[in-house]
Amino acid sequence: MMWYTECGKDGDVVLSSRVRLARNLKGIPFPARADEKQQEEVLTRCKNAVLESGSTLADTVKYIDLSVMQDYEKQAIAERHLISPQMMDSRIKRGLLLSDDNRLSILLNEEDHIRIQAMAAGFDLDACFSLADRVDDLIEESVEYAFDEQIGYLTCCPTNAGTGMRASVMVHLPGLTISGTINQMIDSLSQLGVTVRGLFGEGSKATGYLYQISNQLTLGAAEEDILEKFKQIVESVIGKEREMRTRLYNTDKYKLEDRLMRSYGILSHAVLLSSEEAMKRLSDVRMGIELGIIKNIKLEQLNEVTYEILPANIMLKYNLPDANERDLKRAEIVRERMCS
Amino acid sequence: MMWYTECGKDGDVVLSSRVRLARNLKGIPFPARADEKQQEEVLTRCKNAVLESGSTLADTVKYIDLSVMQDYEKQAIAERHLISPQMMDSRIKRGLLLSDDNRLSILLNEEDHIRIQAMAAGFDLDACFSLADRVDDLIEESVEYAFDEQIGYLTCCPTNAGTGMRASVMVHLPGLTISGTINQMIDSLSQLGVTVRGLFGEGSKATGYLYQISNQLTLGAAEEDILEKFKQIVESVIGKEREMRTRLYNTDKYKLEDRLMRSYGILSHAVLLSSEEAMKRLSDVRMGIELGIIKNIKLEQLNEVTYEILPANIMLKYNLPDANERDLKRAEIVRERMCS
Repeated sequence: MMWYTECGKDGDVVLSSRVRLARNLKGIPFPARADEKQQEEVLTRCKNAVLESGSTLADTVKYIDLSVMQDYEKQAIAERHLISPQMMDSRIKRGLLLSDDNRLSILLNEEDHIRIQAMAAGFDLDACFSLADRVDDLIEESVEYAFDEQIGYLTCCPTNAGTGMRASVMVHLPGLTISGTINQMIDSLSQLGVTVRGLFGEGSKATGYLYQISNQLTLGAAEEDILEKFKQIVESVIGKEREMRTRLYNTDKYKLEDRLMRSYGILSHAVLLSSEEAMKRLSDVRMGIELGIIKNIKLEQLNEVTYEILPANIMLKYNLPDANERDLKRAEIVRERMCS
Repeated sequence: MMWYTECGKDGDVVLSSRVRLARNLKGIPFPARADEKQQEEVLTRCKNAVLESGSTLADTVKYIDLSVMQDYEKQAIAERHLISPQMMDSRIKRGLLLSDDNRLSILLNEEDHIRIQAMAAGFDLDACFSLADRVDDLIEESVEYAFDEQIGYLTCCPTNAGTGMRASVMVHLPGLTISGTINQMIDSLSQLGVTVRGLFGEGSKATGYLYQISNQLTLGAAEEDILEKFKQIVESVIGKEREMRTRLYNTDKYKLEDRLMRSYGILSHAVLLSSEEAMKRLSDVRMGIELGIIKNIKLEQLNEVTYEILPANIMLKYNLPDANERDLKRAEIVRERMCS
């Protein structure tokens, strides 16, 4: 089962958790500086390190050669956060090891040689770290990482050096956004070494109240300590968000209900739907479910549809290069999901 | 059964038909010129002419003294077109004879002493005329009308003199309105002695593509001939409206469907609804039903709700003087109607 068809712990605020570890092979330049042969060597060695490990994990993972993929195919897996947008650039030979349930994706020759990325539904960074750590050990059985006793793991960008770890959660913050307290929170979190961004990472805008919160600190502390501190910060965001939702609801119950129910009505009836509108209205429906106003849909149903309706995913599944035809198909998909 | 819970002939375009006859008693000044005693005499004589006629009709009609009604109560029956807005003015003693099914209303001391008004669902002016004519004969059994051999029936306003008859239909013209051909049609109809107005008569704007079409000619021809000519004109409007709907639908099917379905979605989910928005969106839903896009609602259901949600009707039924509370109640009523 795909991870995003589940609704995990604190699923009313946290859609998903993610931990990624940046690693590089010793003695080979970082991808952007490596020649073609070296890039290929990275792909082969890392691929073999996992697939030929004899581990049970190897059976659930397949290798994907990004150089033979169409742009929209790469875009589709980027929309699902399985690869980063940087991986779209085809000037470097790139590969991906992906588990059947999409919980684990290992990006090869992104900014670093190896980026181990583990995802989970809801607020479950421990599960992510545990999976990423296991894969890290597995790869290290057959390759030697670039490592410095003083610094830790060496990475292309110095901000990732040390643990090479970045933890993040995708959160739904309508309460903090509508009440206008989000900007103040973003400022105070940044002083704690935590950034808040839009759904698609750096520089992207928040779509439908969805944000990514991630730790920036990678150096000078053990993974477990960094993770623990980050988890506490996320807990406090969850608490504040729930508080603001309740306050918002109590201030003008009917106006809020009206807005959320209208979005639900539109999603379950519209014939044409842009991805932008769909994301916004799905966010309203999500809030409606979280507040107990909308009862006949489950959060899990929303998690899947949130990815399904993104442009490249529709293009990939239904082969629709025309944006109008995608709007028609998107509305159809959403209507079906809203009814079940 | 109330007439507006039915869907009559050509119900996809014509919501209702109406015929009214203006009559005055001989030897008594028109209501605005009559003194209080004379006004009361009109009320008593007309009331008795119907209620004490011994006719079967008398059993189904009740007398309502407008002078003891609250403004919002009068407003509520005006919203249902049972009295004209002029009847709201309490400086003249006014009365109403109303049949149980609301098909017949006899306005006493409006602009004329007597205005016999007969309504029917759909396009059925013959039924209206036949009922009004029968009541006219009944009243004439016991009172003498102001009548001139040359002119015909004498009326307060000379434009009503002669037959004293005005026929009208309430029509739904989204095709002609959206396509922009309505203004041209209004111009050419006015040259035929036919006027097109908004839902609430003279000077009112069209609400949700609803219009009133009525004949202006009352003089120089027999009732039957005037009616026949007017019916032909309405037939041609019906034909043109259907043509424009089909054309509109064929031009951009999905865009139109999207609009109509969104209105349906909003009406079946909104928590707050103004009467203006409700009328517009109900009109979209009506069009959706007429085009076969919306299948689980019947036109009859819309006819009733169209009246039910008007401000004074909600005020009257639920005693809600606050507009916000009415918006809440209106949304509730509409949601229920959209579900059945």
